[in-house]
Amino acid sequence: MNIKITGSGSYIPTQTITNLDFAQHHFLNSDGSTFAQSNEVVAEKFLEITGIRERKYVSDDLTTSDIAFIAAQKAIEEAKIDAETLDYIILAHNFGDVKKGAIQSDILPSLASRVKHSLKIKNPKCVAYDVLFGCPGWIEGIIQAQAFIKAGMAKKCLVIGAETLSRVVDRHDRDSMIYSDGAGATVVEATDEEGGILAHATATFTYDEAYYLFFGDSFNKTHDPNVRYIKMHGRKIYEFALSQVPKAMKECLDESGVSIQDVKKILIHQANEKMDEAIIDRFYKLYQLPTPENIMPMSIHYLGNSSVATIPTLYDLILKNQIENQKLNKGDIVIFASVGSGMNINAIVYKM
Amino acid sequence: MNIKITGSGSYIPTQTITNLDFAQHHFLNSDGSTFAQSNEVVAEKFLEITGIRERKYVSDDLTTSDIAFIAAQKAIEEAKIDAETLDYIILAHNFGDVKKGAIQSDILPSLASRVKHSLKIKNPKCVAYDVLFGCPGWIEGIIQAQAFIKAGMAKKCLVIGAETLSRVVDRHDRDSMIYSDGAGATVVEATDEEGGILAHATATFTYDEAYYLFFGDSFNKTHDPNVRYIKMHGRKIYEFALSQVPKAMKECLDESGVSIQDVKKILIHQANEKMDEAIIDRFYKLYQLPTPENIMPMSIHYLGNSSVATIPTLYDLILKNQIENQKLNKGDIVIFASVGSGMNINAIVYKM
Repeated sequence: MNIKITGSGSYIPTQTITNLDFAQHHFLNSDGSTFAQSNEVVAEKFLEITGIRERKYVSDDLTTSDIAFIAAQKAIEEAKIDAETLDYIILAHNFGDVKKGAIQSDILPSLASRVKHSLKIKNPKCVAYDVLFGCPGWIEGIIQAQAFIKAGMAKKCLVIGAETLSRVVDRHDRDSMIYSDGAGATVVEATDEEGGILAHATATFTYDEAYYLFFGDSFNKTHDPNVRYIKMHGRKIYEFALSQVPKAMKECLDESGVSIQDVKKILIHQANEKMDEAIIDRFYKLYQLPTPENIMPMSIHYLGNSSVATIPTLYDLILKNQIENQKLNKGDIVIFASVGSGMNINAIVYKM
Repeated sequence: MNIKITGSGSYIPTQTITNLDFAQHHFLNSDGSTFAQSNEVVAEKFLEITGIRERKYVSDDLTTSDIAFIAAQKAIEEAKIDAETLDYIILAHNFGDVKKGAIQSDILPSLASRVKHSLKIKNPKCVAYDVLFGCPGWIEGIIQAQAFIKAGMAKKCLVIGAETLSRVVDRHDRDSMIYSDGAGATVVEATDEEGGILAHATATFTYDEAYYLFFGDSFNKTHDPNVRYIKMHGRKIYEFALSQVPKAMKECLDESGVSIQDVKKILIHQANEKMDEAIIDRFYKLYQLPTPENIMPMSIHYLGNSSVATIPTLYDLILKNQIENQKLNKGDIVIFASVGSGMNINAIVYKM
């Protein structure tokens, strides 16, 4: 028995926010002092490092569970399954539903329950739950689906990653330019077809790293300290990711038994283009190889960092021929890899 | 191979809140109108139906992840394992860390990551994540641990249920008297010992039921609608639970192959004593049997409804001889059963 993705869908939010749209923001340092550089210089440097020109925000009327539902519908349709036959709906996110203008995360009921409700699924045996695992949440959802299938507890699972980071950003923090919104969904099934998940690796680093990404105060010290935002120690995350992600990917690939030469694509979480390039270079260096051309499809330039949604959205866009010069064909070996809050890292070696 | 609980621990918060402590609250109907009855009458009726005389709230300095950590430490100590050998930390909650005086749920990083950090576990292979599944979250965490163990992905898992509902209650809602705080933790291991998890059942009802428990506005209509609280449609939940929980329990017991006569104890989620009694009566009626004396240990009288923490705390208290006239001995058959937000229902048949 193998475990394969049989359908995917994604939702790209409709509001395009360019770097220019941040021109009027009053960026501050973490100590509250005013930024030495002009916003033009900030935006230039930002583009150079992260590769982000623009990002997508949901319209004011939508929340995370709304866009998760849209992506889920598409994935189910593509998988050509009856939604009533789903054994699990696993939804990864990190902030729940945050209404425009509100500051509370609404996670009651779980977002997975909301999506199941919207899908009008009646079968109570379709178990719906949310998993909180940082940006690697969608990959971890796939790993959990694999566990249920292997344990004989499921045959078909819907795994969704959805996030609206635009609702939890501090306008005074340059890092707010990184974050975006999005949703990606996949149907995962037990199958006799060849391929599917060949190996996985997961790790949680908390001893020193637990609070590298955290919920913290605005850089504007006049703000209410009880209103918090997504915050990160960017430099520390950069160094951590560079040292740990390539190792996790290698461990996973070696376990799969697949040769590095046979890897066709690496779909990695995208928070920073330069960081991703450095990670992939280090990964190939572990095999004493140069990084192949075109190995890493990117969407960060126009989609930003949509957390759990980034990888399933990218996967879906490639399959729908919406990423230039990037294709995935039957039999291709893909590595999915992610790093994020927790700090969590995971990877899957997957044969199309 | 069997899967058994090898250690448990719980944290009972230190603030005792009696029904009298609500005497000064200004209770309102859901439409904002003033309550016809005096608070004394409300409190009397409340006690009669729910069985709750008092409940526990955490002290102002503590959050959900803090008390989860305390319970976890105890469970690990009792299991006599090296925490570094844990493969998973699964933490069930429903509102994250809500600081006293704040209204935001802090779920970045996951509470499981925070607990792992506090436990000073260095092993990155110990995977930490949160699951959102309503009050049945701890049981679902055990079911997920079982999946990982059966799939060959884990041998030892720490499963925690922790909640501080005192931080999300609407003072103008009578239902606020139900909710409390607490944490319960268990270590679950693959073992050659006889017994353990014999069967499980899980169901998610969302078609009509998804929003029976929800995050909603205060009954005080002058309050900011962007500040929301835990809310429930009590009557609907009561009817739903009575019709569905006994069925799920029966399905689980029948699958386990254990005779109803051999069931020693039923540890059921406690939100309302009368409801629990009615559920158990209906369950035995499905077997044409009267409800045995003393079958359902209760802690609701002094602990209230601490959501995900209720069952693991009750289990721990019984094992530590802290529930009068209630004991669990090696070889005893126990049913764990829960119902809550989602709406989710689950059950486990377990042999001590």
